[in-house]
Amino acid sequence: MTSIDQLPLRPELRGRTPYGAPQLQVAHRLNTNENPHPLPAELLADLGAALGHAALQLNRYPDRDAVALRADLAAYLSRGGERVAPAQVWAANGSNEVLQQLLQAFGGAGRTALGFTPSYSMHPIISAGTGTAWVDGHRREDFTIDAAAAAAQVREVRPDVVFVTSPNNPTGTAVALETIAELYEATDGVVVVDEAYAEFARTGTPSALRLLPGRPRLVVSRTMSKAFGMAGLRLGYLAADPAVVDAVQLVRLPYHLSSLTQAAARAALAHTDALLATVDAVKEQRDRIVAALPALGLTSVPSDANFVLFGRFADAPAAWKALLEHDVLVRDVGIPGWLRVTAGTPAETDAFLTALGEVAADHRLGD
Amino acid sequence: MTSIDQLPLRPELRGRTPYGAPQLQVAHRLNTNENPHPLPAELLADLGAALGHAALQLNRYPDRDAVALRADLAAYLSRGGERVAPAQVWAANGSNEVLQQLLQAFGGAGRTALGFTPSYSMHPIISAGTGTAWVDGHRREDFTIDAAAAAAQVREVRPDVVFVTSPNNPTGTAVALETIAELYEATDGVVVVDEAYAEFARTGTPSALRLLPGRPRLVVSRTMSKAFGMAGLRLGYLAADPAVVDAVQLVRLPYHLSSLTQAAARAALAHTDALLATVDAVKEQRDRIVAALPALGLTSVPSDANFVLFGRFADAPAAWKALLEHDVLVRDVGIPGWLRVTAGTPAETDAFLTALGEVAADHRLGD
Repeated sequence: MTSIDQLPLRPELRGRTPYGAPQLQVAHRLNTNENPHPLPAELLADLGAALGHAALQLNRYPDRDAVALRADLAAYLSRGGERVAPAQVWAANGSNEVLQQLLQAFGGAGRTALGFTPSYSMHPIISAGTGTAWVDGHRREDFTIDAAAAAAQVREVRPDVVFVTSPNNPTGTAVALETIAELYEATDGVVVVDEAYAEFARTGTPSALRLLPGRPRLVVSRTMSKAFGMAGLRLGYLAADPAVVDAVQLVRLPYHLSSLTQAAARAALAHTDALLATVDAVKEQRDRIVAALPALGLTSVPSDANFVLFGRFADAPAAWKALLEHDVLVRDVGIPGWLRVTAGTPAETDAFLTALGEVAADHRLGD
Repeated sequence: MTSIDQLPLRPELRGRTPYGAPQLQVAHRLNTNENPHPLPAELLADLGAALGHAALQLNRYPDRDAVALRADLAAYLSRGGERVAPAQVWAANGSNEVLQQLLQAFGGAGRTALGFTPSYSMHPIISAGTGTAWVDGHRREDFTIDAAAAAAQVREVRPDVVFVTSPNNPTGTAVALETIAELYEATDGVVVVDEAYAEFARTGTPSALRLLPGRPRLVVSRTMSKAFGMAGLRLGYLAADPAVVDAVQLVRLPYHLSSLTQAAARAALAHTDALLATVDAVKEQRDRIVAALPALGLTSVPSDANFVLFGRFADAPAAWKALLEHDVLVRDVGIPGWLRVTAGTPAETDAFLTALGEVAADHRLGD
C-alpha cells in the first residue's frame, strides 16, 4: 500500500487534510448553511422538462460561453435596481470555481491575496491551490472591519487580490459599501466581494453591485446554493466589468459548465420569486434564534445571513459536542468561544433552541 | 470601456485568446470529436427519473466524495479485465478538471510538465493555468513516440508530470504499453496517460490500466464525453493508486461535482452496453474514411480514435476553408499539411467524403 508521502506531491500540501465539514448522520444538520426548503413543486416540473430537453443533446458539448444563462443571471441581478449586463456576468461550478478562476487570472505564483480573518475558509485554501500567497487581514474584536485600519494594511501589504465577504461568513455581518470603496481605493489589485449570502441581508443593506460602475477591478461573486436553495446544483457566478469576464475566460477550462447545469439554473431563475420566498422564512428563523439567545445567557454577532454566530462558550468544541449529543450538528468554525448555526425550518430552530437550552448553562462563559 | 490590458492580469496571460474550436453554424460539424449518436431511448427515461430524484434534494450539497459514482466507474473499468477498486477512482467536471487537479497536486509553480507534441492542446494550457512550466516532448515524423528517445528526453528534462495521450489526439494512434512503462521508469514524476478515446482503439489494443499495479505514480484519465456520447455532461475520471486519489482530494474544490452530474453519470453507467453500442458504429465510419482516402490521393495516420488525421495538403488552412465552403467543418489542429475529421454518422461520412472529393485535387500536396 502506497502512502501519499511516497508520491511527488507539492511540498506545501504534505500533511494537509481535505477541506470539508464532517458529513455526519445527525437528525438536525445545521452546519453547512444549506437552505432547508426543498425546491417548490412548480419548479420541479419545469426542471424535469428542462433537463429532459437538455438530455436530448447531451452527446454535444455545452455552450462554452453559457450565453443564455448569463443573460438570465444578469436579469436577476438587475432586479435590485443596479443595471447588470450579460457581458458583465460569468458562471462556474460553484462560487469556489469562480474564485479559483479569478485567482488564476489575477493571483497565482509570486502574487498575494489578502482577506479579513475570520472569513470564508475557502479563500485561503483556493489561494493556496493556485499558488497565491495569503495574508490575514485584521478585524476588530467584534469581527467588524475598521475601514481605515484595513485600508492601511492593504496599502502596506499591496496584495494583488483582496477578499471581502459580505455578509461575512462565519460571523454574519454585512460590510458597509463605504468600507469596500475605501479598500478599492487602497489597492491596484482586484477586490472580490463574496456575496454568497447577500439575499439574506437585513432590509436596507445594499449590495456591492452598486459600486461596480467606474470600478473595473471590483468583482461581486454570488451563488445559487443558499438563497436559491440549490446547493446540489453547484452554480456560482460573478458580476464585474466585462474586461474581468474576458480575463477569466483566458483561464476557464473549456466547456466547464455542463448542459444540465445550465438548463437547471435557467429553469430555477424562471422561478425566482417562488425560490426567494424561502428567504423570508429563513430570516424569520434566524431572527428567532438571535432573539432567544439572551435568555440562555448567550449572545450573537449581528447577522445578515442564514446563520448565526453564537456564544460565548468557555470551550466551544465541548459545547459543539454537547449539542451533537442532543442530535443537533452545528459548526465549530475555530473561533474561540463561538459556534455557528444555520437557520433552517421552524422545527429545526425548535430542536436547536431546545438542545441549546439543555447545554447552555454548563458551557457558557462565566461572568 | 475598460480593456483587459488595464486590469492587473498575470503577465503571461496578456495577449492570449480563450481556448476553443470555432462554434460555427455548419450543416456537418466534424471538428470536436463529439459522438453523433443521441442517448438511447432506454437511457433517456431512466435519466429523467434519476435527475428528478436528485432534484428533490437539490437544496442539499452533493456527496463531496462521489462515493457511489466512483464505485460505478470502477466497475465499468474492471469490465476490461483489470481490477479497479472504487478507492482508485476519482471524478470531476470533465477530464480537463481531473488534469487540472493533478497539476495542482503534482505540478504548479517551480515544477515542469512534459508532453509529446502534437497532442491534446489542453495539456500545455492547463499546465499554464496552474503555473506549471511546459516542455514539448519529441515525436517521430510519423507522429509515433520513439520510446528510447522519449525516455532519454524525460531523463534529461526531469519533468514532474509526463503526459502521454493514448490514443493520441489529434493524430489518432495508441501508444504501446512498453513505451509507457519505459517512460515511467525514466521519471520520478507522475505519468498521466490520457485515454479519452480508449474505447475506440483497434481490437487488441490494451489500456494502460493494465500497468497500474505496482506503479503508484501512474494515472490513467478517461471521459464520458466520447465513447459514452455525453460531452454535455462533463464527466471525466481517473484510475490510479488510492494515494493519488488522496492527493487530488487535497486540491479539489469541495462539492465540485453536482448532484445532477453524479446522478446522470450513474444512470448512464447502468446503460453501458447500450451506450457503447455506438462505438462500433463510429469505428466503422472511421475505417470507411481511412479506406476512402487513397483514391483521393490522400492518406491518414493510423487511428485508434473516433477521428482521422488526414492529408497531406499543400496548405491545410486553405483545404479547411474549402471544406467549410462545402458545409463540412473539420479541425485545423495546426499541423502543416494535415486536418482532423471526426467520424460520425454514415450520412456525415457521406457528406465529408463528397466534399473532400470536390476539393482534394485542388489542395492535396503535389507529388
